[in-house]
Amino acid sequence: MAKPLRIGMIGYGFMARAHSNAYCKVNHFFELEYEPVLKAVCGRNKDKAQEFAANWGYEAVETEWKKLVQRDDIDAVDICVPNNLHKEIATAAAKAGKIVLCEKPLAMDSTEGAEMCDVVEKAGVPNMVWYNYRRIPAVALAKQLIDEGRLGRIFHYRAMFLQDWTIKEDLPQGGAALWRLDAAAAGSGVTGDLLAHSIDTALWLNGSMKSVTAMTETFVKERLHTETGKVEPVEIDDACAFLARFDNGSLATFESTRYARGHKALYVFEINGEHASISWDLHDMHRLQYFDHRDDSLVRGWRSVHVTDGDMPYMGNWWVPGLQIGYEHSFVHQVADFLAGYAKGEPVSPTFRDALETQQVCDAVLKSAKDGQWVEC
Amino acid sequence: MAKPLRIGMIGYGFMARAHSNAYCKVNHFFELEYEPVLKAVCGRNKDKAQEFAANWGYEAVETEWKKLVQRDDIDAVDICVPNNLHKEIATAAAKAGKIVLCEKPLAMDSTEGAEMCDVVEKAGVPNMVWYNYRRIPAVALAKQLIDEGRLGRIFHYRAMFLQDWTIKEDLPQGGAALWRLDAAAAGSGVTGDLLAHSIDTALWLNGSMKSVTAMTETFVKERLHTETGKVEPVEIDDACAFLARFDNGSLATFESTRYARGHKALYVFEINGEHASISWDLHDMHRLQYFDHRDDSLVRGWRSVHVTDGDMPYMGNWWVPGLQIGYEHSFVHQVADFLAGYAKGEPVSPTFRDALETQQVCDAVLKSAKDGQWVEC
Amino acid sequence: MAKPLRIGMIGYGFMARAHSNAYCKVNHFFELEYEPVLKAVCGRNKDKAQEFAANWGYEAVETEWKKLVQRDDIDAVDICVPNNLHKEIATAAAKAGKIVLCEKPLAMDSTEGAEMCDVVEKAGVPNMVWYNYRRIPAVALAKQLIDEGRLGRIFHYRAMFLQDWTIKEDLPQGGAALWRLDAAAAGSGVTGDLLAHSIDTALWLNGSMKSVTAMTETFVKERLHTETGKVEPVEIDDACAFLARFDNGSLATFESTRYARGHKALYVFEINGEHASISWDLHDMHRLQYFDHRDDSLVRGWRSVHVTDGDMPYMGNWWVPGLQIGYEHSFVHQVADFLAGYAKGEPVSPTFRDALETQQVCDAVLKSAKDGQWVEC
Amino acid sequence: MAKPLRIGMIGYGFMARAHSNAYCKVNHFFELEYEPVLKAVCGRNKDKAQEFAANWGYEAVETEWKKLVQRDDIDAVDICVPNNLHKEIATAAAKAGKIVLCEKPLAMDSTEGAEMCDVVEKAGVPNMVWYNYRRIPAVALAKQLIDEGRLGRIFHYRAMFLQDWTIKEDLPQGGAALWRLDAAAAGSGVTGDLLAHSIDTALWLNGSMKSVTAMTETFVKERLHTETGKVEPVEIDDACAFLARFDNGSLATFESTRYARGHKALYVFEINGEHASISWDLHDMHRLQYFDHRDDSLVRGWRSVHVTDGDMPYMGNWWVPGLQIGYEHSFVHQVADFLAGYAKGEPVSPTFRDALETQQVCDAVLKSAKDGQWVEC
Repeated sequence: MAKPLRIGMIGYGFMARAHSNAYCKVNHFFELEYEPVLKAVCGRNKDKAQEFAANWGYEAVETEWKKLVQRDDIDAVDICVPNNLHKEIATAAAKAGKIVLCEKPLAMDSTEGAEMCDVVEKAGVPNMVWYNYRRIPAVALAKQLIDEGRLGRIFHYRAMFLQDWTIKEDLPQGGAALWRLDAAAAGSGVTGDLLAHSIDTALWLNGSMKSVTAMTETFVKERLHTETGKVEPVEIDDACAFLARFDNGSLATFESTRYARGHKALYVFEINGEHASISWDLHDMHRLQYFDHRDDSLVRGWRSVHVTDGDMPYMGNWWVPGLQIGYEHSFVHQVADFLAGYAKGEPVSPTFRDALETQQVCDAVLKSAKDGQWVEC
Repeated sequence: MAKPLRIGMIGYGFMARAHSNAYCKVNHFFELEYEPVLKAVCGRNKDKAQEFAANWGYEAVETEWKKLVQRDDIDAVDICVPNNLHKEIATAAAKAGKIVLCEKPLAMDSTEGAEMCDVVEKAGVPNMVWYNYRRIPAVALAKQLIDEGRLGRIFHYRAMFLQDWTIKEDLPQGGAALWRLDAAAAGSGVTGDLLAHSIDTALWLNGSMKSVTAMTETFVKERLHTETGKVEPVEIDDACAFLARFDNGSLATFESTRYARGHKALYVFEINGEHASISWDLHDMHRLQYFDHRDDSLVRGWRSVHVTDGDMPYMGNWWVPGLQIGYEHSFVHQVADFLAGYAKGEPVSPTFRDALETQQVCDAVLKSAKDGQWVEC
Repeated sequence: MAKPLRIGMIGYGFMARAHSNAYCKVNHFFELEYEPVLKAVCGRNKDKAQEFAANWGYEAVETEWKKLVQRDDIDAVDICVPNNLHKEIATAAAKAGKIVLCEKPLAMDSTEGAEMCDVVEKAGVPNMVWYNYRRIPAVALAKQLIDEGRLGRIFHYRAMFLQDWTIKEDLPQGGAALWRLDAAAAGSGVTGDLLAHSIDTALWLNGSMKSVTAMTETFVKERLHTETGKVEPVEIDDACAFLARFDNGSLATFESTRYARGHKALYVFEINGEHASISWDLHDMHRLQYFDHRDDSLVRGWRSVHVTDGDMPYMGNWWVPGLQIGYEHSFVHQVADFLAGYAKGEPVSPTFRDALETQQVCDAVLKSAKDGQWVEC
Repeated sequence: MAKPLRIGMIGYGFMARAHSNAYCKVNHFFELEYEPVLKAVCGRNKDKAQEFAANWGYEAVETEWKKLVQRDDIDAVDICVPNNLHKEIATAAAKAGKIVLCEKPLAMDSTEGAEMCDVVEKAGVPNMVWYNYRRIPAVALAKQLIDEGRLGRIFHYRAMFLQDWTIKEDLPQGGAALWRLDAAAAGSGVTGDLLAHSIDTALWLNGSMKSVTAMTETFVKERLHTETGKVEPVEIDDACAFLARFDNGSLATFESTRYARGHKALYVFEINGEHASISWDLHDMHRLQYFDHRDDSLVRGWRSVHVTDGDMPYMGNWWVPGLQIGYEHSFVHQVADFLAGYAKGEPVSPTFRDALETQQVCDAVLKSAKDGQWVEC
């Protein structure tokens, strides 16, 4: 029988749903020493919190997060609320001795992030940030191929995260659904939301960055604010692009936007090495593109690897070759890895400390965009 | 609170797992009057059955299906065992007044299938066959577009279901894992396994077939039988292709094989109409290809529709645009639709009667392959 | 200095243009002992023939093909007229001792075709049929890979040639532009036009066929005839599909139509072997798809080979890697190969005799479609 | 009868070959008032020049370009030599009253380029630079769609030109074949070679740029120089990436490299507008990707437009729908457009003045890369 790991969830939005699904599914597909138990969910609106609890099977409901983090029947606090609340909640949870699982980005900025790292480390509590894309099988496979040295010296890295959902000028900012457009809640726009994912993957696959030069733009300057009821200036970045140099000598380009008509959530990366290259695209997340120059020249070409076989990362736990899994499975894998690490007393990446590096790059990017200068990371 | 629909599962293999997952997930994502409750699972090997029950949360275990179908605490019997057992179990379940949910293909042949239809209809029990591919959102969208009349008169239909997993000559036949290679358990090879899916979709999208001409082949003539321990003749069809004429005047080609090197589970269909065409591929199941000749000629081309937006079939219940779901979700959708229909007292397609038509086409195909003649369906 | 090979062209339509371009270009890109010289063109409409001659540099014009084939200053007769004239012209040309280069298909049927083979062989004149698709670099590469034995035992072959240009019901039949819809001029519809290409490639890549079963359809039953001015029955096949067994034991499906909305000239073939598979598509004719099961399983996938490097068939004569050539180049390659063979006194495939086999398969297909029976090839 | 336009070609390398082919072909496919006549070719190596002349039909050979530009029997001088010779030759040709057709990039830098513009404009001679990619039908179609206003307000532009041919460390620099690696002959590396193409297209499609920030890198620091016989520092840029802001408010990223393993000549651009987006890729140059948000949401997706129909730019002059043309045809189109403009006495874009703007952006990019600052264009 698996031992319980009692979850206290803060938030009942999109991410709370994705995580809850992962908690419910993980032990059906992974053999683990621990099993999540959904103890309590916290949200300011009691009716909605109760509805969420009923749907997912949380045993109790709280309306104040400060109460939730103090509950004795909770082992882990999962933070699924806007970025401006991460630090305060994580700090309180860590001080209460709870495991802290925090949605990305870690914090509003790297100053906050560094403080959060200090707190969880001082408290000695396991901690993790939900950069879930690392656990998509094709992305994990990319990591494995790179770590095996198949690519040789790396020359180039490029990443884009393109969406188009905010082109509409009459989309308001603020509130439960649209806090991502409100700088007070989100800290930044696409940088913390989308680029943070691209940066996390890049640091994981290609090591640390040395320096960046960036530009940002806000295409729609004013939007109705749902909380004030007034048209207010939009202070987040609608788009951000930057050039970077990595410690390993490779050059990189990064771009993210919510104004790329035709792209829903096109997260793409490509890495070019001396011998081989890899590329991947979230829109077809079950495929990895691989090119190996050492192939016989007559049949050398980009290989479209359908990452569904049992010998590929995580896939032995699911169906049979040819049958896809989806977005939600990345969270299941992250929970599975966390539970396995927890059982062994080992930290599971990305920890707060790992995620801090992404935050520092985000800060450098935003500073560069503001100052018009190259900035060291 | 949702009302319970108590499930008795027969089998603990791949399909039992896919269905159990669907029962566990469906109410988290769909608002329904009923909720499946996993009451009992039945398997001949008690240890394995108990392990399966523990993993999925079935409350009880049986080792004889005849006991399971008689249990008072069961509303629905789910048949996930080899084809040669479908009829006997379905008959007993129907006579016991249970809802009968049967894996595809319905039966060993259409004679058996017709008897099964009579039994469930006479018993007046709800019944359904798990042709799950109808509920993949892109496939459901294809159906919707066709029903809206967007394609105009249909000229062509083509379908392929290509795999490559039996090329290895030392793969044995028979037993729990490989009963699909054993004619005694499976009835036929790719015809009942793969073509049955292609035919079910085709009949649903394009109406009934008039006649077929077919060929089959068994490339590896003998394999070790895991039950007898001897090398025995292989009596299933490794590959089957047929030409067909539909009632609506369109021409069709169908092919399936387990010897198409490079294809894991490439189920593809395409339908060509006077005005528009549609194609789909299980290997990228979240996309639908659509061509509309009425488009402005300068920008006319096949559109790759990423079927992930909330206004597309089933997708409003999942994540956000751009984020894929997977194979397993087709079963969740089928359960959701079944429960919704059940609440309203309506049959949910494909019923046994619907699935019988697929069985009749399979029979015609196998007869044609044997006789070398066109056969009426 | 290259020696002249004096060309007499019969016809001034699409194919005459494609061949003339090839004659003009070939020596700029290929080092050859012979060089085509455009001596005379023949067409019934003198003005059009003169215009064609002026455009391409033909020195003389004839309006009667019987005169052209008797000219002393001509070495080779190129037959680019409707199928119903092939036999008579080829016979006269051969008897006049001319090289005969005939557009495909060879003849109206295999009886005619066999007579033509006898005539050219008896006359001892070099002869060739313009099945140009063999000389597309990616197709020639496929042949090379198969001949090297990379695929192992062949299980499956499939080919489609799909167009959509005759869906329009008010398209007339007959005349210079639309003789392909007129059975009197074309002999058959898609079978001789499109399937003939697919069959030629298949026989070349996969060897001879044993037997076929086919169906044909004429979707638009009557069309205005441009010559009679009346609405006349359409007697060609608008669509044709067939199943086949090859001598090597592999199974095949073939389909062609002019009613596949969305496809302009989608000629696709795929061949599945024990170890490897190949597929190709005329719509992206510069790419070959290759799958090799012997690849390391983690990076196994279909390779998209961009057939533009100098070590690939014909490509060393053109530009640099990454830069495409087009449809017209297949004719240049065929002329280059013919001239090289001619210089060495060797026949160049497909000869009339090679093309006769395609004609025989076409006949078997049409007979099967008519009789509803399997027919031996 | 077309009037002759007598060509004097300087150079006999790759580009001289591409242009000569265009001169030979253009009047076979385009109805024009003028027809190029290949009068003389000039190269320092007489044997090679004679061989080139014999192959293409140039009537005479020169070994000194100063003689060629003075010949009375020449109307137009075509400059196909390394960049460091463009200015001197163009100046002499213009002063001799010749039409000047110059390979791209216009000059070693914008100072030279500006002088060249002044010279040709003062001399009043027609002039053009061979930015041939504008005349690929799919690219010309993109221009047409943008000019029609289909995209609405433009938010983003991105372009990459990726190759991998210089990864090999033992590739030498300098000489006829490898002058592109020698800064003395080429001026810059990928910036003048590849980015210049990307910038030319971008300025044409999206208007002028305001400012850029760039980085460059030389991955292989030393290579054997074929002229000195010694290992010498490599002074060109192997890779260059930059961010840009356009006058129309859109943001852009540009990247080019010869170290992107797996890409032969991957020139890609994408433009995102309020209503629609377009992307294109040289590796499949006959396709244009188009997305229109105004499509019915159920069938909204990227359309893959196979740019081969007769109503698409230039395609009415070639074959039939579905049949590709290639790289070389872009030069044919440029000659056709030039001859048509010449007949009407109109300048044909890109003129020297048009190409100067590209040169200025290149200069700004290289300055930014050197100084680490944003630079105004």
